[in-house]
Parts: sequence; C-alpha cells; structure tokens
Amino acid sequence: MSLVIVGSLAFDSIETPTARRVRIVGGSGSYCALAASFFTRPKVVGVVGRDFPTETLNFFRRRGIDLKGVEVRPGKTFFWEGRYGADPNLRTTIRTELNVFKDYRPRLPESYRRPDIVFLANIDPDLQEDILNQAGNPRLVAMDTIELWIKTKRRALLDVLRRVDVFFCNDQEAQMLGGEINIVKSGRALLEKGPRWVVVKKGEHGVLVVGRDRSFCLPGHPTEIVTDPTGAGDCFAGGFLGSLDRTGRADERSIRRATAFGSVMASFAIEDFGIERFKRLKQKDVEERFLVFKKLVRF
Amino acid sequence: MSLVIVGSLAFDSIETPTARRVRIVGGSGSYCALAASFFTRPKVVGVVGRDFPTETLNFFRRRGIDLKGVEVRPGKTFFWEGRYGADPNLRTTIRTELNVFKDYRPRLPESYRRPDIVFLANIDPDLQEDILNQAGNPRLVAMDTIELWIKTKRRALLDVLRRVDVFFCNDQEAQMLGGEINIVKSGRALLEKGPRWVVVKKGEHGVLVVGRDRSFCLPGHPTEIVTDPTGAGDCFAGGFLGSLDRTGRADERSIRRATAFGSVMASFAIEDFGIERFKRLKQKDVEERFLVFKKLVRF
Repeated sequence: MSLVIVGSLAFDSIETPTARRVRIVGGSGSYCALAASFFTRPKVVGVVGRDFPTETLNFFRRRGIDLKGVEVRPGKTFFWEGRYGADPNLRTTIRTELNVFKDYRPRLPESYRRPDIVFLANIDPDLQEDILNQAGNPRLVAMDTIELWIKTKRRALLDVLRRVDVFFCNDQEAQMLGGEINIVKSGRALLEKGPRWVVVKKGEHGVLVVGRDRSFCLPGHPTEIVTDPTGAGDCFAGGFLGSLDRTGRADERSIRRATAFGSVMASFAIEDFGIERFKRLKQKDVEERFLVFKKLVRF
Repeated sequence: MSLVIVGSLAFDSIETPTARRVRIVGGSGSYCALAASFFTRPKVVGVVGRDFPTETLNFFRRRGIDLKGVEVRPGKTFFWEGRYGADPNLRTTIRTELNVFKDYRPRLPESYRRPDIVFLANIDPDLQEDILNQAGNPRLVAMDTIELWIKTKRRALLDVLRRVDVFFCNDQEAQMLGGEINIVKSGRALLEKGPRWVVVKKGEHGVLVVGRDRSFCLPGHPTEIVTDPTGAGDCFAGGFLGSLDRTGRADERSIRRATAFGSVMASFAIEDFGIERFKRLKQKDVEERFLVFKKLVRF
C-alpha cells in the first residue's frame, strides 16, 4: 500500500467573524496528509521555504508522514490569506503569495515511484500532468482542482482529468466544468471526461458521489462548531484516499466507506483552526465518529 | 389510526425555465393528502370554490382521501402564481388570490375529532390554533409554516409551536425563527420553543431532523429530473405523517423511517407538474424508492 500526495504546504492567515489567526500552517498537502495519516503512511511531495517550522515537520513525521518528497528552499513558504463571512461556506481570498512555489516543479523521489494511489491536490494542471508522467502506472489516480484552473487552464485540466479515476470537486466547480446547474447531471457529464467516480463536496450539505453504475450520498456531520472551514475538502480527500489505501481495494463498497471516512476527517478539521484539531485527535475518535455517521443516516 | 390534514386546495400557475402550466391543481392540503394516501386514509380540512374540478375531488376519493372536511363555497378557489429560476430552489411569487380562503374558518367534522395525528399545513397561525382547540387531544401534532407568518404573525406562530410535536420548516425558516445561521443551532433553539422534533427540509440537500437526544439526516434523492418543485415540502410532510400513522408509533425508529418516506414522496412530486406524478404512481414505486434511499446512504 502506498499513497503519494502532491500539494501545497503553506502559511495561512484566516479571519472568521469571531477570530483571527496569522500565518498558521496550512496547505492542501498538509491537510490531506494529516487526515490520511490516520489510515496509512502517506508520502508527500511539495516545497517549503526556510521559514517553515521544523516542529511542524517533526509533527508530520511523528504522524508517520514521509517527507522525502518535500523540498526545503531558500525563501518564503507559500502564503494565503482569506476571510470567512457569517456563512462559513462563503470565503474571500485577500492575498496569495506563491513565494517558493513559483517555478517549483515537483519531483517524485525514487522511493515514491509506482505508488498504489496518487493524489494530485489543487495545484496547476501542468504540474499535475508532470507528476502523472513521473509516477509510472498507479492503481488509482485522484485529483482535486480550484476555480482558478477551471477558468485559466481548462484545456490542461481536462487533459489530466482523462487520466484520473477519482475526481474531487465542490458543487460550483462541478457546475462550471460539467456545464449543468443540476449537479447530478454535471457529475454525469464529468464521468464522460474520464473519471470513474466524481465526488462532489457540498460543505455542510455533505457529499454526492456519482459513479458509472451507481450514485450515492452522505449528509454533512450536523455540527454546531465550525471554527475554521479551511482545508475541509483536502481532509476529505485525505480520509477518503487513506481509507482506500488501507483497504487496498477500490470497489463500490470501499468507495462508500472511503466517502464516510472522508466526511469524518473533514468534520474534525473544521472544529479548530488550521491543523490544530489533528494534534489532539486520536485513532479511536476517528472510529467513533465513523459510527456516528453510520447512525446519522440509519433508518 | 387517523390523520387529519388542514391545508389549502388551490389552483397554481407555474413557470419554470422550460415550461409553463396555467391553473393546475395544487395547495398544501392536496399535496400532503395525496402523498399520505400511499400510507393511510387521510382526512382533509379545507375549502374550495365551485370552480374546483369534480374530477380532482373524485381522484382524491379514489385514493382513499376523506373529503368530509372540505367545504365547497360559492366563489373562486385559492390561487397562487409563481416562477422558478434556473436554480429550482429559488422561486418568486407573482400573485396570490385568497378568494374563498378569505374569512374561511376551518371546522372539523364530528368524525374527524380526536384524531391520532393532526397536521397544520402552512396556513395562518390563528387558524392553526383554532383547529388545535377543536381537535381534542391528538397523540401527535405537526405543523408547517411559511416566511409570511414568521414575518407578520411571529407571536401567534410561537404560541402554536408550543403545542406541537413535529415542526416542519425549511432552512431559511429555521434560521429566521431559531435566530442562528447554523441550522443545527437553530434547530436546537426551536426545540426550546416546544417541538420534540424539528424537521429542516433543505430541498435538493435533503433533510436534517433535530431531536432532543439525537439528530439525523438524509440527503436528497440525487435526481436529474426536477420538473416542478412546487409541493415537495407538503409531500414530504404527507409521506412522513402517513408513515407514522400507518406505524402507529412515533419513537425514534419510526421518525427515521418517516423521514425516509417523506423524502421518497417529495422526490416523486418534483418529477412532474402539480399533482400529476401521483396519478400514475403505484404503491410498489414507493416501496422501491424507499429501498433506493436505503442503498443511497449505505456504507
């Protein structure tokens, strides 16, 4: 079993209606790897500046995350600043500084090649393609994206999508790429473009998984605590792919369980700022909330 | 077992981005009773004008619906005209004509008194209160409302709510009445105002049921066909309460099954205009879609 995650390690400054955090650790790669580390020993590919805290890298290592693919470069780490409104689903990007991510070309270390699963987080589609060319022939390729690439690099994105098994997107991205307001229709349209499974993340409304033979859904965890929604989608992917990697299968039953574990990890992520919640999360918390999700939809 | 439904029987003119229907039969009482008729023999209280089609009343009767409580008055039936945008969750009311509903005071026929379940559809809270005073001591009282009453008759609405076991609302109504953007928090706030169960209908995003000891959720049926969303909420209530009436219990397990049957009936309603879908719906279709919902969330 092996899961390679290619994404960003970053600093985020985050403002919510009730609190503010400055330059805390974030990034799609960080979130995804931490969530996946509750299921497997993920290998991360990314880049940080010399300002990235050693104690965070050590925390990642203690969680069993392989950082051989993380380059440390002179300069500053990728930085993102954003603000959430009273509705946590609405966020505004205030500032993005690429810093060391500028001109970065991800390289897979020899020990990362021919993985079972590759996850291409929401980075530039050209880099995603490049990674796939290095990865050999993974058993399962998953990718995520953001609105920016749909708008500016649609062609390149669709090229990667053809090589993908599991495509993660949110509802707006599904509508933009699939061309339909109805997300089931959009999901089906996206299946035509390559993936076997289209996983539409709908925030508090849960997730819709559209497959070739069957679709299924899970509601969101009905929580009263949404401290910081940042990274929820990446943690969903981490739980989902970590669970698949642990199981070693990708049949419908495994995809369904993976969806539940993705929802579980996303539900934890939003309970605290940045990656804080994972510092005190226990394996048994994960299993317990999995059962909470089971009870949530039982009838 | 007995279920009394107090609501409107109406004509609706409906415009969607692709089609238009003029003066077709609708109304919360019609929708709810038809949906409930797949589970029990509901008794309807309402009023129509002499223009209401006899063939529709006969169709209701063939479905086992008791119309003893429906008054036929000189004049025109209640009329509503509305338009849906490309997003079927957004609708605009163009016109409302109360007609015979103006000055109408619902009366429970003797044979309707002391029912097991009373459903107060989205009518004026004063009429809802009046009905409760006539009903004796039902085992279960359910109510629905609309934004209009929250804005114009909040006090009266809260008075009825204190006597209610199951409160149906949509997410905006939950936020308005509960005072919180987070609908779980709003649901809990509403529990403080009387009901044992707050059922928040979220359209395509499914339903959240907040209870005193436990909450649960179901996603919406992932359909590509949304022909006409009118009446989906009333059909949800009809399936929910019909199922409870058939079961004769209102424990958590029964409420969960009722939620699934509510979702099933709402999912059928939106597949055609007005009450059309129910004209060709078979009992086995209902049971089959119940199983579809079961599979939808299985993991």
